[in-house]
Amino acid sequence: MTSDRLAPQRVPIALGDRSYEILIGSGLLSLDGAWAGLPASADALIVTNTTVAPLYGAALAERLQARHRRVLTVALPDGEVHKDWTTLNRIFDALLEAGCDRKTVLYALGGGVVGDMTGFAAACYMRGVPFVQLPTTLLAQVDSSVGGKTAINHPLGKNMIGAFYQPARVLCDLDLLSTLPRRELSAGLAEIIKYGPIADPAFLDWLEASLDDLLALDVAALSHAVRRSCEIKAWVVGQDEREAGLRAILNFGHTFGHAIEAGLGYGAWLHGEAVGCGMVLAAELSARLGLIDRALVDRLRALIARAGLPVQAPRLGIHRWLELMRVDKKAEGGEIRFVLLDGLGRATMRPAPDALVAEAIEAHTAPS
Amino acid sequence: MTSDRLAPQRVPIALGDRSYEILIGSGLLSLDGAWAGLPASADALIVTNTTVAPLYGAALAERLQARHRRVLTVALPDGEVHKDWTTLNRIFDALLEAGCDRKTVLYALGGGVVGDMTGFAAACYMRGVPFVQLPTTLLAQVDSSVGGKTAINHPLGKNMIGAFYQPARVLCDLDLLSTLPRRELSAGLAEIIKYGPIADPAFLDWLEASLDDLLALDVAALSHAVRRSCEIKAWVVGQDEREAGLRAILNFGHTFGHAIEAGLGYGAWLHGEAVGCGMVLAAELSARLGLIDRALVDRLRALIARAGLPVQAPRLGIHRWLELMRVDKKAEGGEIRFVLLDGLGRATMRPAPDALVAEAIEAHTAPS
Repeated sequence: MTSDRLAPQRVPIALGDRSYEILIGSGLLSLDGAWAGLPASADALIVTNTTVAPLYGAALAERLQARHRRVLTVALPDGEVHKDWTTLNRIFDALLEAGCDRKTVLYALGGGVVGDMTGFAAACYMRGVPFVQLPTTLLAQVDSSVGGKTAINHPLGKNMIGAFYQPARVLCDLDLLSTLPRRELSAGLAEIIKYGPIADPAFLDWLEASLDDLLALDVAALSHAVRRSCEIKAWVVGQDEREAGLRAILNFGHTFGHAIEAGLGYGAWLHGEAVGCGMVLAAELSARLGLIDRALVDRLRALIARAGLPVQAPRLGIHRWLELMRVDKKAEGGEIRFVLLDGLGRATMRPAPDALVAEAIEAHTAPS
Repeated sequence: MTSDRLAPQRVPIALGDRSYEILIGSGLLSLDGAWAGLPASADALIVTNTTVAPLYGAALAERLQARHRRVLTVALPDGEVHKDWTTLNRIFDALLEAGCDRKTVLYALGGGVVGDMTGFAAACYMRGVPFVQLPTTLLAQVDSSVGGKTAINHPLGKNMIGAFYQPARVLCDLDLLSTLPRRELSAGLAEIIKYGPIADPAFLDWLEASLDDLLALDVAALSHAVRRSCEIKAWVVGQDEREAGLRAILNFGHTFGHAIEAGLGYGAWLHGEAVGCGMVLAAELSARLGLIDRALVDRLRALIARAGLPVQAPRLGIHRWLELMRVDKKAEGGEIRFVLLDGLGRATMRPAPDALVAEAIEAHTAPS
């Protein structure tokens, strides 16, 4: 990572009285301007996990000592498997045992799971307290920063219990990515790459030119990639905060991706890896429906591969593929609705014949 | 109860895109107009409890069959002690086991506990589904219909985990009160009487003239009492949806009342009974601070007694009284802030010297 200190980028998220800003840059933790104007309160609770706490917990706590009289920390067990009520309740226990009032500010220091749980805890504690996100993975910086989706899992379904609840601010400190495993960096790039084909051809050009810089954690390149991703997501979410329609285009690659995750067992592939491969399949299906040229499929596949993501689909068997995609929540009345490309820079939702879906998958599956 | 069929009263609750109506009247369950315009969906879930289910569960299910393809029911165990995560999760289990989607409508058929839990479940299920309230107690009709407060208890505090979430409609069917135990009717009257002294002298006059009709479950009298209570609460809440300030006046009598409930052990007195006695003490304290005449204390005390509510404070001992009131959530920095009357029809929040508080309690405590 370079040591350049660029001024942080700011992405305003306009949601009326729930508006907030995403700040993106290097060294935000120690930058006074990044913290100015956040809610003041006697108490603060840092919610993190056992992996991130030893890396950045002390630095954040020290920073917050200047803003709050009392700074508590709860380190949750790491991993999606712990995104449940029992673990969520550890946040409530910590707050109530310390007698924290309804002005307490929660700080989410971690990846998507920590962000989802902290946000939902903030939504529910005393019917709502403010929270600030400090995402420590590239995926969380681009994906969880915008949209206000918080949730926990239920044994019968992922993200089934949650709330739409907006943070007071999101601080994407790019320095925190220096400890991120390479595989998780690639997984984050999948969600960044997504924004090119669905919304911004120029961003796709830029990504192709800048991918090596991103993989080398160049601050200027990361900063632009995170900012542009957040801007596009904010534009989409701003028009459809509660996910009635347009917001579904953000799920480009996800219908195939969720089937991969479920079919191989959660955790075998990272979410971003499954989405990377899923985007290849969704592009292929778009081409076979005559919506895009084959050249765009090849172009996306090459970029996704360069990002260190899988582009070969796992061999699940077509019946299993279709079955898994039908239970995905976007299937209504048993009909799978895919997010497809309709030319470069435009996404559309539509069903597709099973035979074409099978062909698309087969075209990117290694011979057995 | 008379068999008159008056047209239902309507109280509009104006909260922008979360606006809804409270309908108050007799026979609402079978009145088509009461159901028109409610969200249509394939699935509906009635949430009720084991006491109410045998009385009204089948009638509501039958009514809903005409509106939904599938009508499920979950009957929770009755009582505040069950207002916890384990019981809440039975609602989520029922929804997920049946594969209910994010358009499912929840119907709360019961008192305050059922309303609080159903509302919170609706707020969280798939990040928010619509719900309709059918309160079956007088207390719930006047108190839970307005305000959007939903919650469950945590072992370390009541209503600590919840959400502000508005119903799609509230149907206060006065016929449902015919099975209400007399003691619970009185408890509901406490919250109705409250609105006179804090906001509406004419309503206090009317209550004094109409109390016998209310106790006899006269539909016209009940209808006016519920409507006026909801109107006043709506006016207050509309100015302070998230309880920043003004809304606190709705807690007239509650600081003393909560101390009674906690001091005697929850369940010894009903909440409304404790509030009834608490209003006498709060009025007494107001008089001793020179804010109201003694005649108003006597007047309120007489009405509260006529309503079948206790007006003698339990003998907790002054140290215990003060201790209990300090842990009440309205105490900030250890100072108890009381909701007091400042003339008839106006409430104010202020602290009071411990000695005066002790005198006020002593004045309404039976000699040992």
